[in-house]
Amino acid sequence: MAGFTYRRLACDGRARTGVITTPRGEIRTPAFMPVGTAATVKAMHPEQVRATGADILLGNTYHLMLRPGAERIARLGGLHRFMGWDRPILTDSGGFQVMSLAGLRKLTEEGVTFKSHIDGARQMLSPERSMEIQRLLGSDIVMAFDECTPFPADEGVAAQSMRLSMRWAQRSRDAFGDRPGHALFGIQQGSVFPDQRAESAEALRAIGFDGYAVGGLAVGEGQAAMLGVLDYAPGMLPEDKPRYLMGVGKPDDILGAVERGIDMMDCVLPTRSGRTGQAFTRRGAVNLRNARHADDPRPLDDGCGCPACRGYSRAYLHHLTRAGEILGLMLLTAHNLQYYQDLMGGIRAAITDGALAPFAAATREGWATGDIERL
Amino acid sequence: MAGFTYRRLACDGRARTGVITTPRGEIRTPAFMPVGTAATVKAMHPEQVRATGADILLGNTYHLMLRPGAERIARLGGLHRFMGWDRPILTDSGGFQVMSLAGLRKLTEEGVTFKSHIDGARQMLSPERSMEIQRLLGSDIVMAFDECTPFPADEGVAAQSMRLSMRWAQRSRDAFGDRPGHALFGIQQGSVFPDQRAESAEALRAIGFDGYAVGGLAVGEGQAAMLGVLDYAPGMLPEDKPRYLMGVGKPDDILGAVERGIDMMDCVLPTRSGRTGQAFTRRGAVNLRNARHADDPRPLDDGCGCPACRGYSRAYLHHLTRAGEILGLMLLTAHNLQYYQDLMGGIRAAITDGALAPFAAATREGWATGDIERL
Repeated sequence: MAGFTYRRLACDGRARTGVITTPRGEIRTPAFMPVGTAATVKAMHPEQVRATGADILLGNTYHLMLRPGAERIARLGGLHRFMGWDRPILTDSGGFQVMSLAGLRKLTEEGVTFKSHIDGARQMLSPERSMEIQRLLGSDIVMAFDECTPFPADEGVAAQSMRLSMRWAQRSRDAFGDRPGHALFGIQQGSVFPDQRAESAEALRAIGFDGYAVGGLAVGEGQAAMLGVLDYAPGMLPEDKPRYLMGVGKPDDILGAVERGIDMMDCVLPTRSGRTGQAFTRRGAVNLRNARHADDPRPLDDGCGCPACRGYSRAYLHHLTRAGEILGLMLLTAHNLQYYQDLMGGIRAAITDGALAPFAAATREGWATGDIERL
Repeated sequence: MAGFTYRRLACDGRARTGVITTPRGEIRTPAFMPVGTAATVKAMHPEQVRATGADILLGNTYHLMLRPGAERIARLGGLHRFMGWDRPILTDSGGFQVMSLAGLRKLTEEGVTFKSHIDGARQMLSPERSMEIQRLLGSDIVMAFDECTPFPADEGVAAQSMRLSMRWAQRSRDAFGDRPGHALFGIQQGSVFPDQRAESAEALRAIGFDGYAVGGLAVGEGQAAMLGVLDYAPGMLPEDKPRYLMGVGKPDDILGAVERGIDMMDCVLPTRSGRTGQAFTRRGAVNLRNARHADDPRPLDDGCGCPACRGYSRAYLHHLTRAGEILGLMLLTAHNLQYYQDLMGGIRAAITDGALAPFAAATREGWATGDIERL
């Protein structure tokens, strides 16, 4: 598709590093996408998000269609202008969140009708409506509308769900049309069943997409089962297109996914954790509410360049967190997003150098110590 | 006092403009001090506060002594370092807030014993302890410990309260000692009684302070009564020292106070209002939650240089406010602080030009229209 390209720069085992080029800028892969659910990455100015090294944000179709509304955002010039982020945005299809958040859902071949969790208004999502909403938002990477197969699902239920998603994938492709500079990604389903993953991948390749997501993971199956699927599922997807793992994850999940050939990920974890006093570091996760930080004059991580680590002590972050101060969650959100982007940068450099294995081992060793005294 | 000086640059009627010099930087007067209650101006990075033009912040002794504790802040290098603000800080004495926030208060000649509103722990404040806490915090401008006379108070009660505050003022002066580069301000009491205001001013002048506050106002007496006291009370205080009106106020209160000879003010209004969706503008206060903003593509005020007005539409601010997004209160807090500092800058320039009256008339006319469509 004109204006949207993916170029692999290096491989190390199954891991890949590369660059996605869009009219709104480049996306270095493997990429972590901060989540901007309701047209804002919570507690962050967009320029602060960019300063962490983020090349692309994720927006949630379900949330935005309900409030403030896709047509309204279109009238106001699109999501980029609305939220002050001029780089690429990927939007999900709304399919996952409508099933997890909305009330009174009814799923048919046509799509899903539901009640808004905000005001109870009756709403509808279908492949065609999802494509329309994502077009109205001005999304750079549009996700096909699918049903995220719940976990666990028995083989018959999973197959039925996957095949519905494949029919919806075709309808998404048809409704998306030809939009130079904008990409449409298909989503592989098939739960934990290799035959179904293969059937789904084949169906998606036959339709043809600009990128491919491995769907139906990070929904409660646990890391071992997720990595089990990632041992084979990404390899079923085209090598020359980006591969996206939705809703992942913890730093260790991210590393495991990259090792298995994933190029893009998103997760609310760094932002949500930041709002509850949890910080991610090279020595594992740290709860700033813990009393042991109350008198600690050291920065959280003096090797980190984020505003929290450059300007403040652990004692101050502890104080802000305990006092429920907004600056506390602003600073910890910024730190966590910086940590995630620094991790991605380290991963990309390691793949380029053919040194992902030692990088991963050293990184996991650091996390395992849990010893932030050594930061 | 060495290292702390006040210099008047121009007068216009009773209004004055000048500069306070401290080792930590200059304070342009009339000055508005944003409130950083718990070692943070809520929802703002300190560099963003500085970017609005603020020369000085206010910290609350009562809050800081309870959490994280004055001794702890001292061990961590003082309040400036703790909160990342290297310019002047004024701390209140704790006297007002202990009476309005703490539980089980007992006031004696010695001071006030009370229970912390946070954890119920028994605490004490006296002139000596307040001076000690403010020294531990590293405050640049220390306030004498006083009793803020409640309003209304009959003449006898007010006189008794004022005379207690004057005895505490002497004890504050004695306990403060000689601290080059740090200033101690006395606080005039006397409620709405001119004779008592005069007696209080005389007592304070006899003790001698680096600056003088008009106390006991903005406690429910209303604007007319407050301005009535300000018609005479500031004139009782030394002309060659800064005059501070505590806890004021709305933009119109600020203008009225400056016209009556006040040099310094503080108030939570711009920050607190920002957290509830209210914005201050040249055309009066605006509630961003109002549905009329939902589709408005214009900036809140295209003449304002704050991040909210430079980067976003009223529709976006409305959306953030309605959705309860943290960025909404970050942006509106920044806007309101910018509005207040721009107002102070306009006031200082008008006094310098001998044009405060036309400036005040035009400013009040703008507020009175309430017509933000014209912004």
